[in-house]
Amino acid sequence: MNNTHALAEFLAGLRYEDLPASVVEYTEELFLDWLGSALASQNRHPIPLFQRYAQRMGPASGKSRVLVDGTSTSAYFAALVNGASSHLVEQDDLHNSSVLHPATVVFPAALAAAQELGKSGPELILASVAGYEAGIRIGEFLGRSHYRIFHTTATVGTLAAAVAVGKLLELDSRQFVNCLGSAGTQAAGLWEFLRDAADSKQLHTAKAAADGLLAAYLTADGLTGAQNILEGEQGMAAGMSSDVDPSRLVDGLGTRWALCETSYKFHASCRHTHPAADALLGLMQREGLRHGDIAQVTTRVHQGAIDVLGRVVVPQTVHQAKFSMGTVLGLIAVHGKAGLVEFEEFSLSDAEVSAFRDKVSMQLDAEVDGAYPRRWLGRVDVLTTDGRQLHGAIDEPKGDPGNGLSRAELEDKFRRLLAFAGQRSEAEADRLVQASWRLHQLSNLDDFH
Amino acid sequence: MNNTHALAEFLAGLRYEDLPASVVEYTEELFLDWLGSALASQNRHPIPLFQRYAQRMGPASGKSRVLVDGTSTSAYFAALVNGASSHLVEQDDLHNSSVLHPATVVFPAALAAAQELGKSGPELILASVAGYEAGIRIGEFLGRSHYRIFHTTATVGTLAAAVAVGKLLELDSRQFVNCLGSAGTQAAGLWEFLRDAADSKQLHTAKAAADGLLAAYLTADGLTGAQNILEGEQGMAAGMSSDVDPSRLVDGLGTRWALCETSYKFHASCRHTHPAADALLGLMQREGLRHGDIAQVTTRVHQGAIDVLGRVVVPQTVHQAKFSMGTVLGLIAVHGKAGLVEFEEFSLSDAEVSAFRDKVSMQLDAEVDGAYPRRWLGRVDVLTTDGRQLHGAIDEPKGDPGNGLSRAELEDKFRRLLAFAGQRSEAEADRLVQASWRLHQLSNLDDFH
Repeated sequence: MNNTHALAEFLAGLRYEDLPASVVEYTEELFLDWLGSALASQNRHPIPLFQRYAQRMGPASGKSRVLVDGTSTSAYFAALVNGASSHLVEQDDLHNSSVLHPATVVFPAALAAAQELGKSGPELILASVAGYEAGIRIGEFLGRSHYRIFHTTATVGTLAAAVAVGKLLELDSRQFVNCLGSAGTQAAGLWEFLRDAADSKQLHTAKAAADGLLAAYLTADGLTGAQNILEGEQGMAAGMSSDVDPSRLVDGLGTRWALCETSYKFHASCRHTHPAADALLGLMQREGLRHGDIAQVTTRVHQGAIDVLGRVVVPQTVHQAKFSMGTVLGLIAVHGKAGLVEFEEFSLSDAEVSAFRDKVSMQLDAEVDGAYPRRWLGRVDVLTTDGRQLHGAIDEPKGDPGNGLSRAELEDKFRRLLAFAGQRSEAEADRLVQASWRLHQLSNLDDFH
Repeated sequence: MNNTHALAEFLAGLRYEDLPASVVEYTEELFLDWLGSALASQNRHPIPLFQRYAQRMGPASGKSRVLVDGTSTSAYFAALVNGASSHLVEQDDLHNSSVLHPATVVFPAALAAAQELGKSGPELILASVAGYEAGIRIGEFLGRSHYRIFHTTATVGTLAAAVAVGKLLELDSRQFVNCLGSAGTQAAGLWEFLRDAADSKQLHTAKAAADGLLAAYLTADGLTGAQNILEGEQGMAAGMSSDVDPSRLVDGLGTRWALCETSYKFHASCRHTHPAADALLGLMQREGLRHGDIAQVTTRVHQGAIDVLGRVVVPQTVHQAKFSMGTVLGLIAVHGKAGLVEFEEFSLSDAEVSAFRDKVSMQLDAEVDGAYPRRWLGRVDVLTTDGRQLHGAIDEPKGDPGNGLSRAELEDKFRRLLAFAGQRSEAEADRLVQASWRLHQLSNLDDFH
């Protein structure tokens, strides 16, 4: 039995009763966190393009809901639009060691299919856990070399989404192998778009969610797929990685709940900026520094941060600013935080932020790089205008499981995301919060629209 | 200006009036040839799965037609189902040096979009030419290393389909760059399925056509993509090839019509078997051999043939038999041909074919491998039962441009494909043949259903 078959056995056998209460609760929290991200991008480019595409190519109505506009459609197009919309504001969750953003691919597919199939809250939770557990392990398996070129959330996300929908469709282990085969052979997504600030990130998550859903539905109807898509001679590892670790695929199945290792995003920027941002914030608070006191900041980072962030020197768009280490640290230094509002108002046109940006550089650090991706260490060297050399360090960025967000903090983040979009009433926010906290009791998912 | 921009300039500027008459005529011929393949798979697994998926996820009706069942739907789902259906019987065209099957990805997307947009025959021809010209060059660019792991018709097919639909949407050169970016970042498809005889080949062509169409429609509505998806540091070449040849991307644009280099398939098997099949057939005819006279056949082949065909020892399905060199040569030796009917009736259960299969081996040949993929040379060494060593050789398999099919032969092939499916009357076949031969005059594409 290869690792893919072992993983499939686990997925097929997983029951809601097997989930520890902490896993169920954490899933509800991740779900609410995702919901906020999916709603925050309402009316923001390029999300309306996906909405119009769904209207043009899809049915006039259906059982699944497009969150940003409340319309109904088929599961496929709901997964597509919700997948696009939940990754735009860069506030969705991240699993460190897989460098996978699970929520933005798993929940759009799972919720769309669950609504279409008339499933319950516990069934959605079980399916989502399956998607997280499989996706995180496949991301870890594919390793760092994969992430250098490929956007793991796009590629691995296709399989994670397929697994979640497959669980809703009650696939058996043989079908899960086929489903992984059909999802894996659709896995795509290149980082090249980053240097142009192009819209592909939304395309990636949209397609990962929708393609994964397609793989699962076709599998349930009888489509077969490669039996060893992950490790085979012409499979994903062979084509898209040079440092795979097969043992990760089955690491702690049933005992290690990888879902609970997932981090929340506190800052509204690329997660690769967060460790340095927290380290700088801590240092400035400790030393009582203001941004004008700082002459130079060297962030000591892992290679992945340089690969993803190194392209952006002077950001041209708000989205690109979220991938600019200098801009993120400038917002932190000048405005004390790097939330959605700060990005909108200050990331491009604020002269003090721009001036601070030019003081920031990135440097590869052996300790930080060695710990990555398991741990995302934050290290900054600051030279003050009066000539002092100071050092800031954090070992767990805010939002990591050891430095997490409480339910109250998550509610607050959710309400801020909805306020940012400005389209939902407080009553609607309340309804969505309450429904998320009762997800384990819900007999249907009609509340989520 | 990088090569992608140069290619985009050419695509945006290409006009119907620029096409030589021979290109227009060849496009009509390729179109009819494709139509036959798309219809031949009616009711054959896994095509009904895609039909049901389109019905479940798509609109109840639309302006585009699903060929295998005559239903109407949106352009997206017509491209999906027609893309799946036209590659199943292994009779669709192939371009040698790119190892791309252009028809099965370009025409499904182009016809679906053209019908949806109310375009004319000449507009469909122009769009298809654009798709072929771009796709073939991108396939050549990505080289042999790409094809070792990735199914070029799936990956490059996504871009070819996107270009064809983009031309129908009248994209300008800037938009074509974006369109290639959005298509390239969706490009996926691994050969791993082959060893399991899984259904992924149909998934690949379905998704290439549909994903390419999606890229074009979203681009026309404003989606941006990577500006250098092909050659950029985190683009397709970086992630999916180790022997790219950038000069191929712009090779002879406007003077070399790569579309006219496309080969028709004569045998109903993987094209990698055709050179040896023709060489064996020629040898047997020349020497007056019968299959019982042959003790052993060594086919001298290029590496790509071993990569694709080497997995199948004893085929378990008709589709897998099409990738078995021994079975194909067995059909040729025992039954004189390897058409759809021979595969259905004799490829799995005929004892003489199975016995012949076991006499066949493949051997890498330096001359054949050196000529590939530009030329597909056929070389067989035959040991007869009475101890003679004989050699067969052909330099252009039947169907190659230098050894092509006449319109009468194409019509005959088309009618045989429809007869194989058994669902269409002769009058319907006539209508489709006549419409294809008048494609350059048609004001709409309503005849194609």
